[in-house]
Amino acid sequence: MAGLSPDLQTPCLVVDEAKMTANLDRMASRIAGLGVGFRPHLKTAKSVEIARRMLPDTGGPATVSTLREAEVFAAAGVQDILYAVGITPAKLGRVQALRARGCDLAVILDSVEQAQAVVAAGAGPIPALIEIDCDGKRAGLAPDAAEIIDIGRILQEGGAELRGVMTHAGGSYDVSGHEAHAAFAERERQAVVTAADRLRAAGLPCPVVSVGSTPTALAARDLSGVTELRAGVYVFFDLVMAGIGVCAVDEIALSVATTVIGHRPDRGWTLVDAGWMALSRDRGTAGQAIDQGYGLVADATGRVIPDLIVTGANQEHGILALRPGSTATLPDLPVGTVLRILPNHACATAAQFDAYHVIPADTGAAPAIWPRFGGW
Amino acid sequence: MAGLSPDLQTPCLVVDEAKMTANLDRMASRIAGLGVGFRPHLKTAKSVEIARRMLPDTGGPATVSTLREAEVFAAAGVQDILYAVGITPAKLGRVQALRARGCDLAVILDSVEQAQAVVAAGAGPIPALIEIDCDGKRAGLAPDAAEIIDIGRILQEGGAELRGVMTHAGGSYDVSGHEAHAAFAERERQAVVTAADRLRAAGLPCPVVSVGSTPTALAARDLSGVTELRAGVYVFFDLVMAGIGVCAVDEIALSVATTVIGHRPDRGWTLVDAGWMALSRDRGTAGQAIDQGYGLVADATGRVIPDLIVTGANQEHGILALRPGSTATLPDLPVGTVLRILPNHACATAAQFDAYHVIPADTGAAPAIWPRFGGW
Repeated sequence: MAGLSPDLQTPCLVVDEAKMTANLDRMASRIAGLGVGFRPHLKTAKSVEIARRMLPDTGGPATVSTLREAEVFAAAGVQDILYAVGITPAKLGRVQALRARGCDLAVILDSVEQAQAVVAAGAGPIPALIEIDCDGKRAGLAPDAAEIIDIGRILQEGGAELRGVMTHAGGSYDVSGHEAHAAFAERERQAVVTAADRLRAAGLPCPVVSVGSTPTALAARDLSGVTELRAGVYVFFDLVMAGIGVCAVDEIALSVATTVIGHRPDRGWTLVDAGWMALSRDRGTAGQAIDQGYGLVADATGRVIPDLIVTGANQEHGILALRPGSTATLPDLPVGTVLRILPNHACATAAQFDAYHVIPADTGAAPAIWPRFGGW
Repeated sequence: MAGLSPDLQTPCLVVDEAKMTANLDRMASRIAGLGVGFRPHLKTAKSVEIARRMLPDTGGPATVSTLREAEVFAAAGVQDILYAVGITPAKLGRVQALRARGCDLAVILDSVEQAQAVVAAGAGPIPALIEIDCDGKRAGLAPDAAEIIDIGRILQEGGAELRGVMTHAGGSYDVSGHEAHAAFAERERQAVVTAADRLRAAGLPCPVVSVGSTPTALAARDLSGVTELRAGVYVFFDLVMAGIGVCAVDEIALSVATTVIGHRPDRGWTLVDAGWMALSRDRGTAGQAIDQGYGLVADATGRVIPDLIVTGANQEHGILALRPGSTATLPDLPVGTVLRILPNHACATAAQFDAYHVIPADTGAAPAIWPRFGGW
């Protein structure tokens, strides 16, 4: 396989380094144009090698979705981390342990109970951002909620640190096209700027005003009042992102290498050794204009095979077939043929593996393997 | 939490040892009544500790779904393993390496190409079973396919070993009730017995005649002509199995411990720290009579909270809400409350974790942690 080890054992996770680098460059030029800070989200890649390429600097800043990520990246030298899932009291010990080792780890919260727990934890002030809801999709307080001021006061008066406000427009994944994403970017901005203004009017500090998602980061026009932007899946992109117009299919840097294990000519099926254990159960394109099944199939060099998708998946079996209604002709794919499957959702598919097999951007370089971790 | 460490970090995977043992005992008494051999499938548990409890004997026999499983269990002393996913030429080296270390590892195949590859591998005969299709769901040859005899001859004449035939009624997961599962068990039996008879009539050996799935294993009435039965998910059971009448919800031995991180009273939501990264994206109950969302919620002791399900999941956020139409009243679930979520599909949910937190059957025993592995 082009750029990959010839004794590759499938299924395995493949990164096209040249495509990944182009994706990183695209985001870097967006950020430069917007004039805000950038705090990449490392939850998609969960790899120290890839984090080094994503982060503005070895020390960060970075966003994570688990304390395990915070611990691994802190050990690798990242010193400025936002843990962007609502904090619980039982996790504060690990937060304090990381802070004691010199990592400036901040937490997020959206309730008085959590603020009281952060204050009660003592042992040095823990910085916290208040989570603001901008689209009704998940957690966070409405920008005009009275609790925002209550929480700010509890943190500041209790000896913790009110570091600011943050939001994430998960709803931007559900709409298609640049205009729609730009509108969500403006909803993110308005939500946090409104909350920040209210905190400051109440005499409270709000140094950080944080927004972001890959679709809104790539579409935002004006981030006045925002101090930093977060995004993660742009490092690889995926079929869900392609389906809402955020990237082209050809820009997807992640795939699962798989091998043909059989055929069912009576049904038009080609069977491969990547089932849902390798691809994940994510069916994120099911509700989009083009349903890609469990993934879109490319040849070993990464060239998409027209209309060939993963129509079914068992634990270790994938069923490839032409899309319903397709008139394409399948190439010959004998047992042993290596293929690559582009994922619906990079975060979910990558999580099924413990390493990336890297196709080097430098065609003269040897294939590399970058470890990946999971867990909490 | 009852039987679990008080400093548990969530989300984590929990096994109720008493329930697991009852599930193992139930299958053991079934097998004894049927008078066939038993070859447990280890792909659900992927744990040496649990394999020891599932296997008839330290040495096996066992079924696996990946060569990684074969390697790990062989290293733990299992010497009789069936790798039950169609073999590819590039994997034969690892098969031979395990066989050279004394593990009697057999492969499966359903094409002349694969049989030729097994023969060409040389370096000692590799035993192979021919995969038979009994329900049109996946791989395998029809019981009357001419290729069955061709493959048998290629293996035997080429110096490999035709060990027998096998089938799996994945379709049994799609039907509900004992009668329907018994009918699938009979389809499994007829398919392999027909194929075995044809091989023997052609002068070929067929010592092993292997069938199985959890629903058919628990419903089969007569396995005449069958030599062994395979099943895996019965060790834990799950909501999909409960939904088709194979077990009661109260018999499910696996759950994901999670902590409440927030609330959205305006929407009736409780947010927890188990999203799809912990629960998996499996929505196997979506097509059943009772859609359990991403899982059914129990309290920390494992008692189901009526009508509370995971209605939505982001990467690290679960959204709990009452089922549509429910008139149940929610208990108070403040931030920090530990809950346990019963999974749709045990294989998929367990795969998201690297360890089992065990609630010991002996209430006086200390909580245990059993490692779990993944990969290929």
